[in-house]
Amino acid sequence: MRDRGHYDAATIHAILDEAIVAHVGFIDADRPVVIPMLFGRDGDRLFLHGARKGRITSTADGAAVCITVTLVDGIVVARSMFDASMNYRSVVIHGIAREIEVDADRLHALRCISDHVLPGRWDEVRAPLDKELKGTSVLEVTIDAASAKVRQGPSNDDRMPGDDDVWAGVVPIRTIMDAPIPDPDVPADLPVPRSLRRLTGFE
Amino acid sequence: MRDRGHYDAATIHAILDEAIVAHVGFIDADRPVVIPMLFGRDGDRLFLHGARKGRITSTADGAAVCITVTLVDGIVVARSMFDASMNYRSVVIHGIAREIEVDADRLHALRCISDHVLPGRWDEVRAPLDKELKGTSVLEVTIDAASAKVRQGPSNDDRMPGDDDVWAGVVPIRTIMDAPIPDPDVPADLPVPRSLRRLTGFE
Repeated sequence: MRDRGHYDAATIHAILDEAIVAHVGFIDADRPVVIPMLFGRDGDRLFLHGARKGRITSTADGAAVCITVTLVDGIVVARSMFDASMNYRSVVIHGIAREIEVDADRLHALRCISDHVLPGRWDEVRAPLDKELKGTSVLEVTIDAASAKVRQGPSNDDRMPGDDDVWAGVVPIRTIMDAPIPDPDVPADLPVPRSLRRLTGFE
Repeated sequence: MRDRGHYDAATIHAILDEAIVAHVGFIDADRPVVIPMLFGRDGDRLFLHGARKGRITSTADGAAVCITVTLVDGIVVARSMFDASMNYRSVVIHGIAREIEVDADRLHALRCISDHVLPGRWDEVRAPLDKELKGTSVLEVTIDAASAKVRQGPSNDDRMPGDDDVWAGVVPIRTIMDAPIPDPDVPADLPVPRSLRRLTGFE
């Protein structure tokens, strides 16, 4: 159970949904490029967005991309450096990116990206303006292959004489959200919106 | 100051040193591949390691790689979806990976990787065995180009009528370490090692 691949959709979707950013790889002028990006998911489709005519949205349209997300869960401290490791959950997705042309589909994809970062926020703010939509490229990635890798638990030491006196264990790592900080010019009586209260637990 | 590139070495090194994992991109059979990896740094050289004849260490030897690290600092909640964003610090490095052949150099690189994850641990445990070294490939990446991007602060809203009643601000995000958990068979009187006490603040 400590070090194995998982390929079921439920595992893959859960890891994707918990991650805040993805690292998106594409090929530009024969070299690999990896960029952190926000993303959205609807079933087995992933969505990315960026400025129209930006580097990634221009280069990746019609091209192979690799979308990787990683959740770091802990440092595995072993009785030797060789057995030291990380606890993590990661997903690697290969697919072809294609720019979405139809406005209704673009809006749906943008909503999925918004819902991924801050569920419910889409309905609390105004709809995108035409000029905003026109300035945004939205890519859909259909998944050709997806795999998850999960490592959890203590070190898998190959014990040597003397190792019984060496500490081993795990340092748990978590990503947490602190209380929302309003902009200075937000009226003092304006409550923290429902979407943020649900996401962070803070009022 | 909210959205700008930084290219000085001190900024780039500080972001690299704070990150736990890197996302390493390379090209395999004409497709981009992005894998999360531990890494080490010595000045302007980065080090990666993996199983000998593993996919990445075999494919990347002599090839162009892109090493990206990202620290997520917050969700930027804006008055519209278009102005929503993330606060983050990221570094993108392009270079050529080459397998290190000389054992002394391999040991130095492995120590740098170890020191990156858990400073001081290298000296608390036994040296790698010959068979362990033989089973490990170590790559050195000499940096051809490096850039950092840092976004901090509140949203940069293009205010519209009615927006004064919409909450805006930042949800701070942090990565934290919890108290180390010893393996079940670590003697109860064995203290948490110095390296872990320094890293985590827990006794």
